[in-house]
Amino acid sequence: MRDAYHEELDSIGDGLVEMARLVGSAIGRATTAILDSDLKLAESVIEADAKVDELQHGLEARAIALLARQQPVATDLRIVVTSLRMSADLERSGDLAQHVAKLARLRYPNRAVPQDLHATILEMGQLAQRLMAKAAEVIVTKDVDLALQLEQDDDAMDLLHRTLFQHLMDDRWKHGIETAVDVTLLGRYYERFADHAVSVAKRVVYLVTGEHADEIQAADIQPEIQPVAGAESA
Amino acid sequence: MRDAYHEELDSIGDGLVEMARLVGSAIGRATTAILDSDLKLAESVIEADAKVDELQHGLEARAIALLARQQPVATDLRIVVTSLRMSADLERSGDLAQHVAKLARLRYPNRAVPQDLHATILEMGQLAQRLMAKAAEVIVTKDVDLALQLEQDDDAMDLLHRTLFQHLMDDRWKHGIETAVDVTLLGRYYERFADHAVSVAKRVVYLVTGEHADEIQAADIQPEIQPVAGAESA
Repeated sequence: MRDAYHEELDSIGDGLVEMARLVGSAIGRATTAILDSDLKLAESVIEADAKVDELQHGLEARAIALLARQQPVATDLRIVVTSLRMSADLERSGDLAQHVAKLARLRYPNRAVPQDLHATILEMGQLAQRLMAKAAEVIVTKDVDLALQLEQDDDAMDLLHRTLFQHLMDDRWKHGIETAVDVTLLGRYYERFADHAVSVAKRVVYLVTGEHADEIQAADIQPEIQPVAGAESA
Repeated sequence: MRDAYHEELDSIGDGLVEMARLVGSAIGRATTAILDSDLKLAESVIEADAKVDELQHGLEARAIALLARQQPVATDLRIVVTSLRMSADLERSGDLAQHVAKLARLRYPNRAVPQDLHATILEMGQLAQRLMAKAAEVIVTKDVDLALQLEQDDDAMDLLHRTLFQHLMDDRWKHGIETAVDVTLLGRYYERFADHAVSVAKRVVYLVTGEHADEIQAADIQPEIQPVAGAESA
């Protein structure tokens, strides 16, 4: 009986990894779509999000069924409840990748991102994808060190976000308001995507150690970062 | 024994209502702070968010303890799991109210919102606050009709958001890039806040009817709304 139970628990973990894999791929492809103004690719990302939503619904249904049937306590209960939260993070990440793709579609055949911000957006997209790949790895390996590393990668995302804003606010900005609005939203999408990847990793830390990631890192010296508009991630 | 149990369940409901009350007040005060450039008020909103986070942590701990001790099934299990999700929505709404307040603080003593958008932002702030007040009422009364009404109110938010974007994209925009960025982010904060209020109400519908709100409303004629950049709420 307990074997079938742990199989169910494993299948929930597998579902989370699959979701992370899909949304990681989605943010990568959405980034390509918006940088290349590739309508077909954008549309494939938009459509693919349904699969992520479906996975989430299935995963939630299994988690709730497991709670009802097996009535887990202690660690197992924590795993199931935390999995529900992680699936919500991943589902939302999928939405954000979809937002990037929808912006690509909206501006097609034009490019939403001007050439001088191409590299920054590419870097944000790649970092977002890497963060999600690491989050998936953390789900599989339960590697606390790797999980804590994600927070540092997220600092890099904050820096990129800041770079983006500095560029926007520069007096030499010549791309007009529409592009400024697009770039502002894009920056926010990537930043939130990264937040959700970090959140997934933090939840694994909590599962493994029983402590919140912030507490573990409290002794570390945090890089000094000044707040800028739109860099809110809390 | 069951009495103590239902008392616990009620106390979780009370916690949700209290959270909704606090974040509803926060978005109202944050809106005043940003429109009046009131630094003290902005700071009080920023500080007050800790109380919302604290409520969420307490509520989650009680919900998990209740799952472990009482091992509810069927409807009661659904209530507890759904409460966890609602508390996540409300916590995030609090963050968004805090973002509005932080923007007010960042631009102080200047005003982040130009005079010609004052009325639109005021309306968005008021609507956000009303939506959350209704969400709180839905938690208390479990009134499905009122819950469905929130989705229509959210259409009004989408319209306001669209108005904001039209204004931004207008060739006569004369407030520069920084203000365009601020207004873009503000619009997004209010829109997401409203999404979370609607989400809370939808979850109550699901609890009461076992059906998702979308299915219930499927027969209704949806207003035709064209997508614009930044109006993504999915």
